[in-house]
Amino acid sequence: MKRGVAFGAAALVAMLAFATLSFAAGDPLPSWRDGTSKQAIVDFVDKVNRKGGPDFVPPAQRIATFDNDGTLWAEQPMYFQFFFALDRLKQMAPSHPEWKKSQAVQAALAGDMAKLAKMGHKGLLEIVGLTHSGLTAQQMQKLAKDWLKTARNPQRKMLFIQMVYQPMLELLVYLRAHGFKTFIVSGGGVDFIRAFSQDVYGIPPEQVIGSSLKAKFELTGGKPEVVKLPQIGSIDDGDGKPINIELHIGQRPIMAVGNSDGDLAMLQWTASGAGPRLMMLVHHDDAAREFAYDRKSHVGRLEKALDQARRDGWTVVSMSNDFARVFPSD
Amino acid sequence: MKRGVAFGAAALVAMLAFATLSFAAGDPLPSWRDGTSKQAIVDFVDKVNRKGGPDFVPPAQRIATFDNDGTLWAEQPMYFQFFFALDRLKQMAPSHPEWKKSQAVQAALAGDMAKLAKMGHKGLLEIVGLTHSGLTAQQMQKLAKDWLKTARNPQRKMLFIQMVYQPMLELLVYLRAHGFKTFIVSGGGVDFIRAFSQDVYGIPPEQVIGSSLKAKFELTGGKPEVVKLPQIGSIDDGDGKPINIELHIGQRPIMAVGNSDGDLAMLQWTASGAGPRLMMLVHHDDAAREFAYDRKSHVGRLEKALDQARRDGWTVVSMSNDFARVFPSD
Repeated sequence: MKRGVAFGAAALVAMLAFATLSFAAGDPLPSWRDGTSKQAIVDFVDKVNRKGGPDFVPPAQRIATFDNDGTLWAEQPMYFQFFFALDRLKQMAPSHPEWKKSQAVQAALAGDMAKLAKMGHKGLLEIVGLTHSGLTAQQMQKLAKDWLKTARNPQRKMLFIQMVYQPMLELLVYLRAHGFKTFIVSGGGVDFIRAFSQDVYGIPPEQVIGSSLKAKFELTGGKPEVVKLPQIGSIDDGDGKPINIELHIGQRPIMAVGNSDGDLAMLQWTASGAGPRLMMLVHHDDAAREFAYDRKSHVGRLEKALDQARRDGWTVVSMSNDFARVFPSD
Repeated sequence: MKRGVAFGAAALVAMLAFATLSFAAGDPLPSWRDGTSKQAIVDFVDKVNRKGGPDFVPPAQRIATFDNDGTLWAEQPMYFQFFFALDRLKQMAPSHPEWKKSQAVQAALAGDMAKLAKMGHKGLLEIVGLTHSGLTAQQMQKLAKDWLKTARNPQRKMLFIQMVYQPMLELLVYLRAHGFKTFIVSGGGVDFIRAFSQDVYGIPPEQVIGSSLKAKFELTGGKPEVVKLPQIGSIDDGDGKPINIELHIGQRPIMAVGNSDGDLAMLQWTASGAGPRLMMLVHHDDAAREFAYDRKSHVGRLEKALDQARRDGWTVVSMSNDFARVFPSD
């Protein structure tokens, strides 16, 4: 894999992030404004890192899990992977006239997002199943990488790949510099995220957990391949997050970051472990620089988790107050 | 987790392994006799590590996967986890009279291993489902750790935990010292292996892939827990190995080590990637020091994989010829 070479947009983002980090030699989190959120992060990292201190945590147990959509990058007006699936659907539909029977396909091809949103997960998953199956992970990642080079957010007009949060890029680097192992635990498709997680987040494929299709092992013309099937293997959302963390990581995180009710189970489970903990929620309250939504949003609804965060004293990050900069290009 | 303290037997094994490694300063693989197998390992590691060389592989892609039963530790006269399940079955059976209806349970309680073996995977999985469900991963690991402190192999009379292969312990250390990330990919239960993988093999829980039960997230008395269900989630054997490697690691290994036909798909898939590759099979041909079995064994049958290894020039490790020492205590 020629990562750095093949993947121009991501390399750009990474360079931007790196430039910022090198510039602010004194402050490892320059895109975080001083305040309770930044202080909570620094205090937490200091105490788990203090050898002989009462809250010291051995590096092997410094597991931090991050949601992706709405936590590491934006998710409005719809999960970015859905735009990828939609573009692929448009491309593939002419050779699959039988797909027209599907209500979800009809709505998607007609651009009727409201109707599709009403179908909930079922509609999205049907589109993903149709457009993502029959591929190997490598083929899927190649398609996603190519798509990310040019695909733009319909509202913000930016490249999707540039809509990662600069403060989060800094947080990931800061945690790893202090012995943490950083994982993505996302409702998004695992191969889609792996297409850019190393380049953009510095997170290798084996530390990405996501939703997945079932797969089969087959000899295609004598060559062994693992090919995706159109059936869902795992939905890595809600209760699926702690269940998959147990399966893939086998340790309870000491820190978890999310932004929606889909992250609540992961945060609850992280919170209930022994020893020092940091639970964080990104609150999208910045319509000017990003998007503003919470309790009533179809995408990334934040309601129960916000209530529990306030009740239990979890860290609620206000994008408008806590982020000095939102995107690397700001 | 107080790993080193809580786990006496494993700590002993680790110490033994470490003593050996420090002693032989000149040779990182002192328990391997000079020969084609040892040479294949050293040549492979040298070439992927040679910067600027034609076979250089960046460390991030140096993924090595190891089977466990029969590859890292012994597996006769039956997978060790099965003895654990059997002991647990005996303990639990009196409070579960309904289990007596099961043929597998009857055979197990009567010690009729031949009958149980005839039922194949189905019988074993039924026993595992009954005895391993309803537990959290943490509870399961505690039970396994306690059991491993005293449980002995009925044929060899050694503690099971001492029946790990000293040459393999050295190989794992050697690979990691050269930038490899070592993974276990086993048909055994993931939590059972995680109970000792860090202490004995130096492999952290997030690098252990195994068979698993489904699980549910629940609030037990207000405390969130992930609890195992009696349904199989994944059988990490045969085709399941490359499928799970894709799901959990997301990269094709450049090196894979196994000992049975259950490892064939993993080895085929590893072999078919581009660039330098090392496929290894441990051949159990040492009845005096360990066990001798291959084509006709019910446990760890090695037939198709042995044929393909010989045809394709994979490295077949002869225990009797290539292992100067088998167990740490030898």
